[in-house]
Amino acid sequence: MITGFSNPTVKSLRALREKKHRKAAGKFLAEGLRLLTDARESGFLPETLVMAETRDTHPLLAALEADVHAARGEVIVTSPDILSKITGKDNPQAVAGVFTEFDTSLASIDRSSSPVWLVAQALRDPGNLGTMLRTGDAIGAGGLILIDDCADPFSAEAVRASMGAIFTQKVARAQWEEFLPWLREGTGQLVAASLRNAVPYRGAPYAAPCFILVGNESRGLPEEYEAACDLKVTMPMKGRADSLNAAVAAAVLAYEVIAALSP
Amino acid sequence: MITGFSNPTVKSLRALREKKHRKAAGKFLAEGLRLLTDARESGFLPETLVMAETRDTHPLLAALEADVHAARGEVIVTSPDILSKITGKDNPQAVAGVFTEFDTSLASIDRSSSPVWLVAQALRDPGNLGTMLRTGDAIGAGGLILIDDCADPFSAEAVRASMGAIFTQKVARAQWEEFLPWLREGTGQLVAASLRNAVPYRGAPYAAPCFILVGNESRGLPEEYEAACDLKVTMPMKGRADSLNAAVAAAVLAYEVIAALSP
Repeated sequence: MITGFSNPTVKSLRALREKKHRKAAGKFLAEGLRLLTDARESGFLPETLVMAETRDTHPLLAALEADVHAARGEVIVTSPDILSKITGKDNPQAVAGVFTEFDTSLASIDRSSSPVWLVAQALRDPGNLGTMLRTGDAIGAGGLILIDDCADPFSAEAVRASMGAIFTQKVARAQWEEFLPWLREGTGQLVAASLRNAVPYRGAPYAAPCFILVGNESRGLPEEYEAACDLKVTMPMKGRADSLNAAVAAAVLAYEVIAALSP
Repeated sequence: MITGFSNPTVKSLRALREKKHRKAAGKFLAEGLRLLTDARESGFLPETLVMAETRDTHPLLAALEADVHAARGEVIVTSPDILSKITGKDNPQAVAGVFTEFDTSLASIDRSSSPVWLVAQALRDPGNLGTMLRTGDAIGAGGLILIDDCADPFSAEAVRASMGAIFTQKVARAQWEEFLPWLREGTGQLVAASLRNAVPYRGAPYAAPCFILVGNESRGLPEEYEAACDLKVTMPMKGRADSLNAAVAAAVLAYEVIAALSP
């Protein structure tokens, strides 16, 4: 039971809201019983479980607590005020957990494990990032590869928007100069939505493993990145706008790809 | 030229960040030259144009300023600090405009003007709302109908996420009890993504005008709303999650519908 705001554990948990402290600690925070249960059922237990003393009893929370104890993890009970301080939310969920960040090297990716992968370049919005993870989970993608300077997949907002997919999808981070040689070491079709020299996205010759590449929210993909793609496809744009939200574009394209690749 | 933070015009513009003040004034704020140019090219001029004294010259800004003057609108020049105060952003765009809110009654909707309409029920996230408007623009939808208690389409976040589509898409707001009789007064197929008694979304018998209905981000659609639909379709869910982000689900379904309805 922790009751003091200045407790060192509270301070170190609070610090995980900031990217530099997450990076230094190699840890991140996930909030809410649903997310923590998704994690547990995917084989991930928090090393520290923080619960509000005002929490309601719930069989899933009891199961989580028992598993954390069994794994010799730490269980902390605290006040809603302190939990609010830790999560930075006025109405925090009654439970949060601290997880070790995953290995996000390209070397950790087994491209043969799925026919579809999502790839995002310079994606700045953590909500879009989490939404892409969630879409990846839904379509049975292998994971999300983040190219160049992207939002942090372990930020609270990305974790929340992923709706648990942060625990089911592989995440890798790489610079373009590192990604492209890695891709060309094995089989893999790089596909981008584009307005230049593109074929209609419906009925395009998709091939597994298919890597669906979307660009930055405001600038799109650099021209030389597009030029390196094996296939450029175009989606109907009937209005004034010339682009879709990045997470939306990835999803529409990904659903087309899995339909094309399904037997 | 306005230099004082306590200037009544500054105060009234600042107030537009809050829903109750927007509603009372019947006005909303749009920021940035790109958005204001989208508005102008769609036939909407701000009644008040606010520019930072530090703005760069730009032919599109000059054109906008000239049009606002010609329409006897107000042009205000102010400091970046005051513009920051008005927009609530640390690094505000150099220009913002005040627009009159549009008529959002169902009576203002001409369903025959487009084969596809997006409908959202109890959508709470203004980013999702704006993204749906943007998708609607891209697919040539008629507009977005907001059912029950939704986020405000005129909030800064929704307007920004719409990427100008707030000026090209019709927006209507109605309670379900009002919407359903309106829909049944004319032709219109109500389609929902559902897990209950649904057919695959690819190859489903879509018919124009098709109204694509998505539910609240966390609760989905109430059962009785689903029961009132003419067609329930299901999308592949291969992972742990049983749902997609609301704006993503709407987009994937909408692209399928326009492909099916295209000659």
